[in-house]
Amino acid sequence: MAEKVKRIALLGSTGSIGRQTLDVVRALHRRFKVVGLAAGSNLKLLCEQAKEFTPEYICYARSDNKAARDAIAALDCKFLPLEEMASRKEVDVVVIATSGLAGLGAVLAAVKAGKTIALANKESLVAAGAIITAEAEKNKARILPVDSEHSAIWQCLRGEKQPPRRIILTASGGPFLDYPPEQMNSITVVQALAHPSWKMGKKVTVDSATLMNKGLEVIEARWLFNIPIEDVKVLVHPQSIVHSMVEFADGSAKAQLSRPDMRLPIRYALTYPNRLPNNDLPGLDWDNFSDLEFRQPDIKKFPCLSLAIAAGKKGGTFPAVLCAADEVAVGLFLREKIGFTDIPRVVDKVLQKHDNVSSPSLDDILAADKWARQTALETARSILK
Amino acid sequence: MAEKVKRIALLGSTGSIGRQTLDVVRALHRRFKVVGLAAGSNLKLLCEQAKEFTPEYICYARSDNKAARDAIAALDCKFLPLEEMASRKEVDVVVIATSGLAGLGAVLAAVKAGKTIALANKESLVAAGAIITAEAEKNKARILPVDSEHSAIWQCLRGEKQPPRRIILTASGGPFLDYPPEQMNSITVVQALAHPSWKMGKKVTVDSATLMNKGLEVIEARWLFNIPIEDVKVLVHPQSIVHSMVEFADGSAKAQLSRPDMRLPIRYALTYPNRLPNNDLPGLDWDNFSDLEFRQPDIKKFPCLSLAIAAGKKGGTFPAVLCAADEVAVGLFLREKIGFTDIPRVVDKVLQKHDNVSSPSLDDILAADKWARQTALETARSILK
Repeated sequence: MAEKVKRIALLGSTGSIGRQTLDVVRALHRRFKVVGLAAGSNLKLLCEQAKEFTPEYICYARSDNKAARDAIAALDCKFLPLEEMASRKEVDVVVIATSGLAGLGAVLAAVKAGKTIALANKESLVAAGAIITAEAEKNKARILPVDSEHSAIWQCLRGEKQPPRRIILTASGGPFLDYPPEQMNSITVVQALAHPSWKMGKKVTVDSATLMNKGLEVIEARWLFNIPIEDVKVLVHPQSIVHSMVEFADGSAKAQLSRPDMRLPIRYALTYPNRLPNNDLPGLDWDNFSDLEFRQPDIKKFPCLSLAIAAGKKGGTFPAVLCAADEVAVGLFLREKIGFTDIPRVVDKVLQKHDNVSSPSLDDILAADKWARQTALETARSILK
Repeated sequence: MAEKVKRIALLGSTGSIGRQTLDVVRALHRRFKVVGLAAGSNLKLLCEQAKEFTPEYICYARSDNKAARDAIAALDCKFLPLEEMASRKEVDVVVIATSGLAGLGAVLAAVKAGKTIALANKESLVAAGAIITAEAEKNKARILPVDSEHSAIWQCLRGEKQPPRRIILTASGGPFLDYPPEQMNSITVVQALAHPSWKMGKKVTVDSATLMNKGLEVIEARWLFNIPIEDVKVLVHPQSIVHSMVEFADGSAKAQLSRPDMRLPIRYALTYPNRLPNNDLPGLDWDNFSDLEFRQPDIKKFPCLSLAIAAGKKGGTFPAVLCAADEVAVGLFLREKIGFTDIPRVVDKVLQKHDNVSSPSLDDILAADKWARQTALETARSILK
C-alpha cells in the first residue's frame, strides 16, 4: 500500500463507464483520489458523486441555467471547463468516458499535457486518430484503452517486443445475431436495447446491435496499436468471454478471456502495470467451462460493419463523417423516427455524399462532423418521405 | 541480423523434438551454431546430423561397440559425455530433448553451469524439480519450457509482474476421448499410437492416450511456474489449438493459441525474447476459425491423471516413482506384454508400495527410480499371472 495515490479526473462520470469507474475507485479507494468530475447530463447523480468523492474540480455541460449553477455552487468544488480539467498539473490519469465527439477537446488537451489517458471514448480516436496519436507521441502522453476489446489486445501485447501481425477483434454479434434477415427492418427500440452479454449505454448498445460498434473498434484498434486496418479481423463470438486476440509474427496467437464486466478493463487501465487481487470479480468458472463459439460476421445482414471498415480504410474525414452520421441515425432510431435498417442506409448515403479531406486538421474534422450531422438529418427526412 | 549467433548443444538430437529442433535451426541457420549433438540411439541419423551441422562435440550413448566408435571417430568431432557437453563454456543454450531420466545428469550439469536450458524433457523436472529449480536459482540458470503447454503458459505470463492465480493446462484428450469406457482394456498399440493432433515419440504418445502425460505436465508446471498443484487445472480441448491458459489475480485470463506444431514452442524458446517472422508455419486460419471445444477430464476413464496429480501433491520421491513405473508400464504395453488399462494398474500398485522420502537427495531420487522400475516389472508379472 506504499504506492503513490493516483489522482484521477473522470470525464463523463454519470454515464455507464463513468459510474463503473467510480465503482472501481470505491473498491480501491486508498489507491485513488478523484480530483475532478465532469458530466454532460444527470446533474443529480453528478452532485451525489461530488459529495461522495469530494473532487476539487467539477464540470457540468448544461450549467447554463440558474438551478444547475446553484446546485454546482453548493458543492464546494471549483468549476473548470473540460479541457482545463483534463490538463491540470495535479491530475495523473484522465479517464475519458464522455460520449460522442464532446470529449475530443479534452482528449487533445490531455495528450498535449502529456497525461496518461484511460480512453473509453471511441469517437475521438475514430474521428481524429491521426491528430491524437501524433500529439500523444510528441508529448509523451500514454493512451490506455478501456474498451474490453482493446484492453484485451493491450493485455495480449503486454511484454511483447514486436508489433502484432494481426488483431482479431471479437464481437458478441448483439441481440440480432440469429434474427431472420428479412425481419431486421421491424426491430424495435426495446429489442435493440436488450444486449445479450453487456450492460452499456443506449447509443453503444444500438451500435452493438448493428455491428457499427465493432466497425468503430476496428478503426480505434488501427490507431491504438498502429496496425493497418487490413490486418484487423472481426470474429463473432456470442459468449463474450474471449475479448479479442492477437497473432504474432511467429504464428502464435494470444487471447484474453474473462467474464463480460467493464470493471475489469477499467481496473486494468487504472492499476496498470499491476493486476490487483479482485474479489468483486470472480474468475471464469473453469469447472463448468463451456465451448467457445466463433463465426464469421454476416456483413450482408450487418452492413454497418463494412461501412465502418471502408470509411476507416479511406481515412481522412470519412471516419468523422461515419461517427456523426451514425450518431444522428441512432438518435433518430431511439426516438422511433427511423427503422433499424435505416441506420446503415442513412450512414451509407451520407458517406457517399461526402467530399473527403485527406490529412485533415482539427477544424476540417469538426466541419465534417457538422456537415455529416446535418446531411444525416436531411437524408433521414428524405428516407421518411 | 546483427544479433549474436547462439551456440546450441542439442541433447537427444535423433528423437522427435531433437529433429524438429534441427528443423528450426536449419530455417534460422544464421542465428544458430550447433556446437554439440548427443543421441541415445539412431547412430545413422546422428552421423547425418553431424555431417550437416558440423558440431565440435558429439555424444552417443551406445558407443560401447567398435562399429559405433568407428562411425563416431570418422566424424571429425570430439566425443564428450552428456554432462560435459551441457556445461561447456562455449554453449549458450542447452536443448534437453532426451527421454526419461537419462538427461537428468545433463540438466543438473547445465543448471549448475548457469546455462539457459530449453527443456523438452519432462521426467527430470517431475522427478527432481525441487533440486533442479533450487540449483537454477542459485546459479542464475534459466529454464525455458519447450513443451507446447508450458510454452503457452510462459507466453501468457510474458510481461506480467504478478504470479498467476491459476494455470489451466489443456489436454487434447488423446485418441480415446470418446472411446467406450468398457472397451478401454482392449486398446491395441496401433490404436494408442494414432494421436489425433500431435506427432510425437511413442512413449509420450501413449502417455497422451492415458492422460499420464497431462499429469506429468501438471507437476512440471508446478516447478516451472512455482505454483501449487492445487492451482493447476486440467481442461480437455480436443482440437489442440489453445495450448494452455493462465488466470491472473484480477480475474482476467490469457490463452495461447496456434496450430499444433512443436516447431513453434521450440522456436519460441530458441529465439526468446524475439518472435521471428515464420513463413514455414502459417497462423491459424481465421477465415475458417471454428468453435473451441472444452470439457472436464474423465478421471474414471483416465486414472493416470489422478495418479500423477496425487503423486505430485505428495511430493518427495513419489513423482520419480510415478515416472519410472509409467515408463516401464508403457514399455511393456508397447511390447504387447500388458494391456492399455494395465498401465495405470501397474503405476498405482507401485505407488502404493512406495515408502516416500521427503526432501530427497539426488541419490534418493535415483534409488527410488531404480526401485520403481524393478517393482513395476514385478507388479506387471503378477498382473499377468
